[in-house]
Amino acid sequence: MNHSSAEAEPETIEPLRYLKGDAAAIETELLRDYKFGQQQLIELWGQACALAITKAYPLSALSKKQPTVLVICGPDENGSIGLVCARHLRIFLVQDYEPTVYHPKRSSHSLHQDFTIQCEKMDIPFLSYLPTEQVQLINDAYNLVIDAMLGLEADSSNIKEPYSGILVTLKQIKIPIVSVDVPSWDAEEPSQDGINPEVLISLIAPKKCALNFSGKHFLAGRFLPYDIQKKYELNLPDYAGTDCLLEL
Amino acid sequence: MNHSSAEAEPETIEPLRYLKGDAAAIETELLRDYKFGQQQLIELWGQACALAITKAYPLSALSKKQPTVLVICGPDENGSIGLVCARHLRIFLVQDYEPTVYHPKRSSHSLHQDFTIQCEKMDIPFLSYLPTEQVQLINDAYNLVIDAMLGLEADSSNIKEPYSGILVTLKQIKIPIVSVDVPSWDAEEPSQDGINPEVLISLIAPKKCALNFSGKHFLAGRFLPYDIQKKYELNLPDYAGTDCLLEL
Repeated sequence: MNHSSAEAEPETIEPLRYLKGDAAAIETELLRDYKFGQQQLIELWGQACALAITKAYPLSALSKKQPTVLVICGPDENGSIGLVCARHLRIFLVQDYEPTVYHPKRSSHSLHQDFTIQCEKMDIPFLSYLPTEQVQLINDAYNLVIDAMLGLEADSSNIKEPYSGILVTLKQIKIPIVSVDVPSWDAEEPSQDGINPEVLISLIAPKKCALNFSGKHFLAGRFLPYDIQKKYELNLPDYAGTDCLLEL
Repeated sequence: MNHSSAEAEPETIEPLRYLKGDAAAIETELLRDYKFGQQQLIELWGQACALAITKAYPLSALSKKQPTVLVICGPDENGSIGLVCARHLRIFLVQDYEPTVYHPKRSSHSLHQDFTIQCEKMDIPFLSYLPTEQVQLINDAYNLVIDAMLGLEADSSNIKEPYSGILVTLKQIKIPIVSVDVPSWDAEEPSQDGINPEVLISLIAPKKCALNFSGKHFLAGRFLPYDIQKKYELNLPDYAGTDCLLEL
């Protein structure tokens, strides 16, 4: 295996692919053909997101005395990933990150409910409402906001309450935003009037909307089988050592 | 949180607990009360085992030219962890580890079958039989053997074929053995005539049989909620940084 790849050098390096509709097809294939479970994928992604956050915002770099982090979770897969991320943050570094979850709509998926209970049982506080009228309260209370609200499945032209209201709030806050997979509003086209995350954590492969993203950009999802990488011509860069994420 | 723990110093450090019957009770509690899923736990454990193996046996330390590793998987949870471990080894370091799975008895659990398919679809080779009569073949072909055969649920006084035969073989091989959680035969008492692993990866907390273990001993399972750690008085040491395992 090593030999053949050595012989094949020098290779032309194909550019990294930015996914449009294929992201959902890849996930379907992972679940249906590769027999991955949603629980398993969400756990791996959420864990990688927590690691990305510790890399982008090490404790020493946080501006506030308390290492608080607000994780806003939507009702679907993106929100589940946010919940797992909060749990791993809570357990890192001898409890030094202090995640708080805002989870405005409980999901009816049992998997999502299980991830919620795992957080609650870990004594992670849940906000009952977001002070949208007084954005300064959010700026004062947290070092950063993790946007795990809406994923690829969201219809960006028709975002409903409470998420549309939260997005208005997120456009006004001054603390950094970390978006999970896609900034919560549009996976296909970068939007002029959307939120402006400082960090983006792309899962599996970056999406079209990230093409002109100029912030810190991480890629997570190392577990992806080689056949899938090849089939979808993802041209993913090599992850280093045993790392489960890399900075693009 | 930081302040109070600083004020509480100096603390008397209680010794790490070696579990006897409690290990199963902890897992039941994680599944029943904390709503963890078995798939999720097995994924986290298998991933941590793969990381432990890369720490104990970095590629540069392997004696053979090909970085081959034999993973022997039992029919239950331990075997599932072995399958996940093989998959993560396969994906690490740009395919540089070459795991082969020996999985003599297919399980009827759908979860276990899914983990098997994930390995097969990653082009991990499966042995159809183990050359028990010619142990030298194993010594020659692999750098190490990962023993993910039998876990806590096994009755050590009554190990059946094919596992009893494999254990006889493992006692004769010269290459190092890494045991997952418990060396496959006895969780409660260290056995004089058992296999002799060079590395042990304890999950959740070490088991009684590891009390006098003198090899390299890793602990994996950082995700464990603090309330459980407290309730069972595990006195786990602190994991460093964002590591998901530590060496005891």
